Amino acid sequence: MSVELRFEYLTNVPLEKAREDYLKALADRGVSAKTETVKTAAAAGRVTASPVYAKICAPHYNACAMDGIALAAELTFKATETSPALIKRELYTPVDTGDPLPPGCDTVIMAEDLIETDSGIKIISAAAPWQHIRQIGEDMCAGEMILPSFSEITPSALGAMIACGVNELSVVKRPTVGIIPTGNEVIMPNDDPREGEVLEFNSVIFSAMLSQWGAKPVTFDIVKDDPAEIKKALVNALSECDAVIVCAGSSAGSEDYSCSVISEAGEVIYHGIAIKPGKPTILGICGGKPVIGVPGYPVSGIIALDEFLRPVIEFLGNTAPFEREFAEAVLSKQVVSTLKYREFIRVSLGYAGDKLIAVPLNRGSGVVSSFMKADGILEVPQELEGYDNGAQVKVRLLRPLREIESSLVATGSHDPLLDELAELLRSFGRELSMKSSHVGSMGGITAIKRREAHVAGIHLLDEATGEYNVSFIEKHFPNGGVSLVECVSREQGLMLPKGNPKNIGSIGDIARDGISYVNRQKGSGTRILCDWLCRREGTDTKKVYGYDREEYTHFAVAAVIAAGSADAGLGIYSAAKAYGLDFLKICDEQYDLLIPNFVWDTPRVQRLLEILKSDAFADRLKQLGGYKLSRPGELRRRFGE
Amino acid sequence: MSVELRFEYLTNVPLEKAREDYLKALADRGVSAKTETVKTAAAAGRVTASPVYAKICAPHYNACAMDGIALAAELTFKATETSPALIKRELYTPVDTGDPLPPGCDTVIMAEDLIETDSGIKIISAAAPWQHIRQIGEDMCAGEMILPSFSEITPSALGAMIACGVNELSVVKRPTVGIIPTGNEVIMPNDDPREGEVLEFNSVIFSAMLSQWGAKPVTFDIVKDDPAEIKKALVNALSECDAVIVCAGSSAGSEDYSCSVISEAGEVIYHGIAIKPGKPTILGICGGKPVIGVPGYPVSGIIALDEFLRPVIEFLGNTAPFEREFAEAVLSKQVVSTLKYREFIRVSLGYAGDKLIAVPLNRGSGVVSSFMKADGILEVPQELEGYDNGAQVKVRLLRPLREIESSLVATGSHDPLLDELAELLRSFGRELSMKSSHVGSMGGITAIKRREAHVAGIHLLDEATGEYNVSFIEKHFPNGGVSLVECVSREQGLMLPKGNPKNIGSIGDIARDGISYVNRQKGSGTRILCDWLCRREGTDTKKVYGYDREEYTHFAVAAVIAAGSADAGLGIYSAAKAYGLDFLKICDEQYDLLIPNFVWDTPRVQRLLEILKSDAFADRLKQLGGYKLSRPGELRRRFGE
Repeated sequence: MSVELRFEYLTNVPLEKAREDYLKALADRGVSAKTETVKTAAAAGRVTASPVYAKICAPHYNACAMDGIALAAELTFKATETSPALIKRELYTPVDTGDPLPPGCDTVIMAEDLIETDSGIKIISAAAPWQHIRQIGEDMCAGEMILPSFSEITPSALGAMIACGVNELSVVKRPTVGIIPTGNEVIMPNDDPREGEVLEFNSVIFSAMLSQWGAKPVTFDIVKDDPAEIKKALVNALSECDAVIVCAGSSAGSEDYSCSVISEAGEVIYHGIAIKPGKPTILGICGGKPVIGVPGYPVSGIIALDEFLRPVIEFLGNTAPFEREFAEAVLSKQVVSTLKYREFIRVSLGYAGDKLIAVPLNRGSGVVSSFMKADGILEVPQELEGYDNGAQVKVRLLRPLREIESSLVATGSHDPLLDELAELLRSFGRELSMKSSHVGSMGGITAIKRREAHVAGIHLLDEATGEYNVSFIEKHFPNGGVSLVECVSREQGLMLPKGNPKNIGSIGDIARDGISYVNRQKGSGTRILCDWLCRREGTDTKKVYGYDREEYTHFAVAAVIAAGSADAGLGIYSAAKAYGLDFLKICDEQYDLLIPNFVWDTPRVQRLLEILKSDAFADRLKQLGGYKLSRPGELRRRFGE
Repeated sequence: MSVELRFEYLTNVPLEKAREDYLKALADRGVSAKTETVKTAAAAGRVTASPVYAKICAPHYNACAMDGIALAAELTFKATETSPALIKRELYTPVDTGDPLPPGCDTVIMAEDLIETDSGIKIISAAAPWQHIRQIGEDMCAGEMILPSFSEITPSALGAMIACGVNELSVVKRPTVGIIPTGNEVIMPNDDPREGEVLEFNSVIFSAMLSQWGAKPVTFDIVKDDPAEIKKALVNALSECDAVIVCAGSSAGSEDYSCSVISEAGEVIYHGIAIKPGKPTILGICGGKPVIGVPGYPVSGIIALDEFLRPVIEFLGNTAPFEREFAEAVLSKQVVSTLKYREFIRVSLGYAGDKLIAVPLNRGSGVVSSFMKADGILEVPQELEGYDNGAQVKVRLLRPLREIESSLVATGSHDPLLDELAELLRSFGRELSMKSSHVGSMGGITAIKRREAHVAGIHLLDEATGEYNVSFIEKHFPNGGVSLVECVSREQGLMLPKGNPKNIGSIGDIARDGISYVNRQKGSGTRILCDWLCRREGTDTKKVYGYDREEYTHFAVAAVIAAGSADAGLGIYSAAKAYGLDFLKICDEQYDLLIPNFVWDTPRVQRLLEILKSDAFADRLKQLGGYKLSRPGELRRRFGE
């Protein structure tokens, strides 16, 4: 067995020091930007490698700037309305805009100022010398510097260069970066992988990042966890690329060969950076080229590349350092971090009035969707143990604040209908969007209280009255400030494997021997329902195997059952239907939307209410199945102000 | 002759109305975004055309998240340090990160928490069920919406889609836009065009703009000014493109056929917009596709496309409207505009302390370099007649403020050495840049007074003392606040055509009959010198033909003489050398740099002083010719505080 680890090879260098030392090492070993000659017409967005001088003047001749006639200005000097100058045919030349100024002429008179007669043209005012003429070099002169070195070439600069006879120029080469995916378990993407197979999508993420940064990515074939094979692939990649990244195998596990391979092929500057995620990053130089070993988890890889490869690309491409944008936000809950690392925490951002609220997202480094959903990154410095709930923090933005401003933040109980609301809102107009997180009904009430969200789905049964939601709101919002909007009635029941092989007939059966249950998290409406059902049936939940196994959505529970990893779980009909599961209906329940009054009058909330009442919404719920609509979008009750 | 014009066809519609009506007309005629299916791996930056749902869960199986062993958690529940649990070989499975969780196991224990013995593995604390396991769907669940419609696809979204088995998806098609250059005088770019030939660079500018906006440009061959030919080209372009622009010929002149051609092939919504530049823009629809007639002057074309084609591309590509960024600035001089148009004025921006100063640039619509040099656009609304000197104005930014912040604004007297300073400053570091405008020595003094610039080149001779510059500064800065830095001594003289065919031997010869002179603008040091030389020689400048013909740089004067358009002009040796002209030396003069004290201690100024003292600068001046260096970069005098 292979449980022996080699942790001793990992250092724990602070981020800034590692980056600075690495860039300095690259410069010391002569790594630098390369140049190439390109056609001007194809140079948009490139960076000049040397100063560009005008070869010819623009315009390159004295050009008439109006349709009319050209002549010697002195012929007109005495012309007035009462005594016009008559210019004979042989003394002027008809010209169009762009025509060269004819010899002997030094002025142009516009067509609309001319009076044609049989004997010539009448002029009724003096024409100033050089009027309506674009003199040679008016725009730029031969020999003038159009652009200095290291300037980004804009569309208008292309025009200026071509106008000045510059049809090719020297630009900084876009660095080519090789990506080598490694791993025995890693396979090319498909839609039906087997257990233990890992879809290789890191190289796709990294390619797209590299393209954004102006580099040219080249992805090589997947290499098995074999040092000789990895080395062969690295040497091959180095022969055609300006830099190489080796994906996964960067840690110090039994099958992690990146470090030893890079070290053999060149040198390792650092292995192990004091960041989380991203610690097992390797910064190497082989054959005068940067080689970075990237951790296998996608979030770790994204952070490692952003912190280390991006500045390397800027260095190789001679582009200005990317300027990160930041915003001040209020942290919605405590974040605990260790003194060992600088931690990068993905956060969702939303406005509560004019206050920007940051909600930490799933910190798992395998959870690539957390990066997709993140609006920003909160960095916890190494010397801090975290931030308190309510702390004022500086968040690095991953999308513009104006997108965040018009976004509706939904949370609370999970229901697939939230996805459909997001879609309907989106198709209403590009400026509107909705993002959902799933924290259960009680989590939704807490989020609304903390002003972290604009809408929360809740389905909380008051055992005493049999009524849904209202008594919970009265209790948690004694001063009001929220509105309850009717949404749907939905079917709750036990989701069971297709054909119900273990013959489960009631909630009490989940306590049977040999039955593996999967539950929802504490505080979710479904968990509260489950606890209550068990109490009502007299089922001892301590005897239910897996009662503490918690999932955060109906889909997650259904997925566990569909995969054969559990035998039953409480959830809604639409989730059972989506996963082809059997469904033992237990009850109908009221799923409503809780909305703070301060956002009630915003376009995003008013649009949402319209959508709830729409036929399109009803159609989508019919597709999902298990819903009854009575008065969706109607205000059930407004609580205080 | 062809002086008949058809101005009656041009309307003068306000910008917003024209744009709104045009977009509405497009929608009314069924123009809309098209979709296409692409591989997920190639979809970065694209926009989803429909919601994307997860096909499989990510991860798609319960995966071990650590190297170690997997087992049933209950085997460890009673383990403590004093009474460890001994797990026999057949009761656990060694696992690596990513392995599927073996059947019957519900927990993973990390390798470093294991104690291996001959009879099995010792565990000294209870393992929680489902610890160190990435449960199926932890990241996303099958059926979950990954992205709604009309979402831009980020790198991490690519990863999320592939992880969820989505290997292709429907995206909005990037619109293909055909560009048809027209004009008898227009030719393909080269570096030796004849008089009357116009290099076709507009299509290159427009292509680059279209690519920036996410469209695919296709440039067709140049078409002569012939309505039948233009129509043929338009019909052909419409057959393969989603939109077409016809370049030039959009006005109402005798050879302007765009409007009639578009009108014949479809309909013209508007011809003539109340903007300047850009008035003769044509907004048309042919065969259900947008067709825009664009004015021929590059600046007009850029404005017209930015105002009309960009929103069309956003409409066809279903992308979020581009958000323009603005900054408040102080206008450095009066801007006069007409009530007939909304005017777009290119401005240069620079910081004087924390105040942003906007300096209007050349307003000629043929001057493409003014767009290249512009940092922003000042819009003068149609209902205003302009802005006063010192007015607080809102400027649309063309580059980020942080670039403007670190930029050194140079002005005053022209000398090609300014270009070389810009280049040396640039090669010192990407964050530094210098931009120059040429307004003459007196203009430089005025600009420094108005805090519009950080450095001004001046060479002003005090006739009374024979000393340069100092007395002018004493006069114009009675309270000081500036420093005078020594730069170079340079040779002034008469620039003459190669071989001096008109046998000019002194300044007095410029008044001879048959001699055409070209002068520098009033207020320039060279003009002041010329006036003084003429006075000294007793030359009557009224008798000098072309004494009022004014150019703004030494190069421009040299270019006019080199082109045979004038016989003589006063200027510096390096300009004569650059244009291969004869040079009749008249004197040496002192060219210094005037720098306001408030920027003295900034890195950009201190870097500049270093560069002036450097060998690299001396080498470059040697190449240019005609300079003598004594103590460049030394402080000649500091005036007050």
